Amino acid sequence: MSDAYDQLIERVREIGRMEAIEALLDWDQETCMPPRGVDARAETTAMVAAMKHERRTSPEIGELLDQAGDGGEPERAANLRETRRLHERAVKVPTELVRDIAHTSALAKDAWVKARADADFSAFAPHLSRLLDLKRQQAECIGYETELYDALLDEFEPGARTAEIAAVFAALRERLTPLVRELAEAPTQPDFSILQRDYPQAGQEQMARRFSIEMGFDSEAGRLDVSVHPFCTSMSPGDVRITTRYDEHYLPAAVFGVMHESGHALYEQGLQHEHRFTPMGTSISLGIHESQSRMWENLVGRSRPFWERHYAWAQEVFPEALSGVDLDAFHAAINTVKPSLIRVEADEVTYNLHIVVRFELERDLLNRRLEVADVPAAWNRKMAELVGATPSNDREGCLQDIHWSMGVFGYFPTYALGNLYAAQFFAAARRAIPDLDDRIRAGDLGTLLEWLRANIHRHGMRYRPDELCRQVTGQPLAIEPFMDYVNAKFRPIYGLA
Amino acid sequence: MSDAYDQLIERVREIGRMEAIEALLDWDQETCMPPRGVDARAETTAMVAAMKHERRTSPEIGELLDQAGDGGEPERAANLRETRRLHERAVKVPTELVRDIAHTSALAKDAWVKARADADFSAFAPHLSRLLDLKRQQAECIGYETELYDALLDEFEPGARTAEIAAVFAALRERLTPLVRELAEAPTQPDFSILQRDYPQAGQEQMARRFSIEMGFDSEAGRLDVSVHPFCTSMSPGDVRITTRYDEHYLPAAVFGVMHESGHALYEQGLQHEHRFTPMGTSISLGIHESQSRMWENLVGRSRPFWERHYAWAQEVFPEALSGVDLDAFHAAINTVKPSLIRVEADEVTYNLHIVVRFELERDLLNRRLEVADVPAAWNRKMAELVGATPSNDREGCLQDIHWSMGVFGYFPTYALGNLYAAQFFAAARRAIPDLDDRIRAGDLGTLLEWLRANIHRHGMRYRPDELCRQVTGQPLAIEPFMDYVNAKFRPIYGLA
Repeated sequence: MSDAYDQLIERVREIGRMEAIEALLDWDQETCMPPRGVDARAETTAMVAAMKHERRTSPEIGELLDQAGDGGEPERAANLRETRRLHERAVKVPTELVRDIAHTSALAKDAWVKARADADFSAFAPHLSRLLDLKRQQAECIGYETELYDALLDEFEPGARTAEIAAVFAALRERLTPLVRELAEAPTQPDFSILQRDYPQAGQEQMARRFSIEMGFDSEAGRLDVSVHPFCTSMSPGDVRITTRYDEHYLPAAVFGVMHESGHALYEQGLQHEHRFTPMGTSISLGIHESQSRMWENLVGRSRPFWERHYAWAQEVFPEALSGVDLDAFHAAINTVKPSLIRVEADEVTYNLHIVVRFELERDLLNRRLEVADVPAAWNRKMAELVGATPSNDREGCLQDIHWSMGVFGYFPTYALGNLYAAQFFAAARRAIPDLDDRIRAGDLGTLLEWLRANIHRHGMRYRPDELCRQVTGQPLAIEPFMDYVNAKFRPIYGLA
Repeated sequence: MSDAYDQLIERVREIGRMEAIEALLDWDQETCMPPRGVDARAETTAMVAAMKHERRTSPEIGELLDQAGDGGEPERAANLRETRRLHERAVKVPTELVRDIAHTSALAKDAWVKARADADFSAFAPHLSRLLDLKRQQAECIGYETELYDALLDEFEPGARTAEIAAVFAALRERLTPLVRELAEAPTQPDFSILQRDYPQAGQEQMARRFSIEMGFDSEAGRLDVSVHPFCTSMSPGDVRITTRYDEHYLPAAVFGVMHESGHALYEQGLQHEHRFTPMGTSISLGIHESQSRMWENLVGRSRPFWERHYAWAQEVFPEALSGVDLDAFHAAINTVKPSLIRVEADEVTYNLHIVVRFELERDLLNRRLEVADVPAAWNRKMAELVGATPSNDREGCLQDIHWSMGVFGYFPTYALGNLYAAQFFAAARRAIPDLDDRIRAGDLGTLLEWLRANIHRHGMRYRPDELCRQVTGQPLAIEPFMDYVNAKFRPIYGLA
């Protein structure tokens, strides 16, 4: 029995190493690869993806899973459970359909780039229709309890159910929409323009690196580079790479961007080396991953204690921009809440509403309750209703995100789950570390990191996301910790009771 | 028939893409990878090597080769010939032996690093003995006509024979040894110390990049980075990467290093894109590859016409080091000939003698005419005799090169072949472009590159190295062009008739 398990794990590690190769191919393409390398790289990447799918679905893995059985001590049980889940998901989908989706997505991504540049949804619509057809087929192959969307969501947030998410989002929507309106009409309004002054890149780099290191990012086990779209990727817990971009007239992009990606990176660096390339050495879900990035970016990085420690130094780094700005004004500026059109630039309060818009639309699309041709109108209507901002064209509306063009449906909710988990985990951390604010004020971020390591990072995929949440916080996922957090933080900034 | 060929080529391309992955894994490890990534990277690299060997030796390739037959139009014939050669070489060697060599080499490389640091050959000797045993076994598996060494040499210089190389090297040795002595005793001696003044790194970078671009290096299809050991690697003709290192007190390392690696890169960038990942899109041999790097580094880069164009600018870039130095003195300094101990720092005239030392020793080791324990004494004796310099310890003697510790025997001769081919090709280029010197003096390096592209680069593996040499120069490989070149260049510099 043990023999079958060991053999299985060796096969699983091979798949994990292929994923590390994919990560390197992608990282290199975004940061280093010369432009003319693109054709050969596309071929190479496609080959690795095909090899990975072949391994994942190999009858040998099925047989070894049968022989190894279930259960055993927790780490073994987790490796078996997750390997079985991925194998069963993969074998249900015919290779022909996998190839179709890959091919259609490649064309769709291309069409999306053009359609977006032209702000013309109609040029992208036929691609979206084809992708939706294929994804519906995929979901039917995989199977689901209640609705199609479950099967797709499960890829990114194992075990999550559409109906539960819909309920959470409905509650969020109900609580956030009035808050956004209240903040917009509040007596005190931050001066956001402070952040749009001259911030030389060298200073931003210095600041971003300092915060990242203070968070605990191990630069012997990772690196920071520049790319057009910031991301975090991992080749192993000893090799975790983050990227950022610099805008000399917008401070938050790099500073909070690097804190965000460093949050992801701390999770990856905190996975157990000896479990690398297996589920026990892999992050649990996108929602939990996003909870780490958002916690460091927002609950730490945009907190008052954090800037009480760093603001005097920030003024030294950017004397021209900040010498006449006091800490309160700066703290208010980095916490400006404002209905806006672009998700990736949204503040903490409106961000989740952007996600609700996408979730409701993609769910309706898959369930055929919304026609592809009606997407722009539906998008604009929902944006006006939920966020309070109406796009003037499709580029700043329904064409802004790349996800659908890549055939990715069911991913968006994980962003909002990340925000909710972040607040819920942070509240639990605060209970475990009662002087957490004082520690942050004193530059001690290590105590929080240690808590995250012990309670979240080191477990890899040992627990399902909902199990982890109950175990760490004593509760299932809820919106209250998030609502408590935003109310406690933003109402005072805006001069509200 | 055509169907089998097409299927075969698709398999061959997959192996080529795996080689591109290996190239990226190695490049990244040398230039970007954080230190703690090393364990996982070693696993990943080993997995790709094993997968490649598995594909290379797969019965499917054997069957497709049988079905596809031989010959056909030249490109097809070359692809079949080379695919068959590599397949037959690979299947002859048991996987167990491949693994043994890989494992023994990994340990040997480690032992070599330590032994070299301690200048203690005896700590490395047992590893060398084991590797020699394994490589003898490998050579026996592969088979050979005359002697073991043939089988190993063939990996790096397809079709080359030990006896021919021995004859060429004997002739070289006979002609070069007295020349080295004559230059050492010549009336005029260059002032080498000119090159050891202060050369700020920024200026060196500027110079290296300028020369590389002027040579025709396409930076849309490649990049230049820093690494401890300079190298050139290729992911595809559209993605060719070179590295260098900077020494602020030794100008030639970076400037001629980058010209050398750019020479390799021009070859890779000049291969045909549509043949990528197949033999027709692959360089012909290490000897021919080295001819390109050495030609650009030495026959162009250390020539008088090249510096007639660039020297005034060089003086602007390095005013402190060069303002009081005239062109003749600079040109003499970069062409200093001096018996020295370290191969990679050797000048053009003594370099080949360093290679002869290694060739004679490794051939004797494999043929059991030399005992491992006697290597240091034999090395020192040969160095004194051929080069005129005696190491004072094993670090600057028989432990200086990494090759043997990696199980690489039969590689060294390709460095000397490269020098000989470079001179022979350059003489042919000069016949085809009678005003070549004037063009170099005027900054036109494109005419030479075009000639190399048309006559060498674009052919990939269409010809065997000896065929290519005859076709391009009208002659088989010979030492005369090289001897003519060094006599014509160095005698005047040293004030000899």
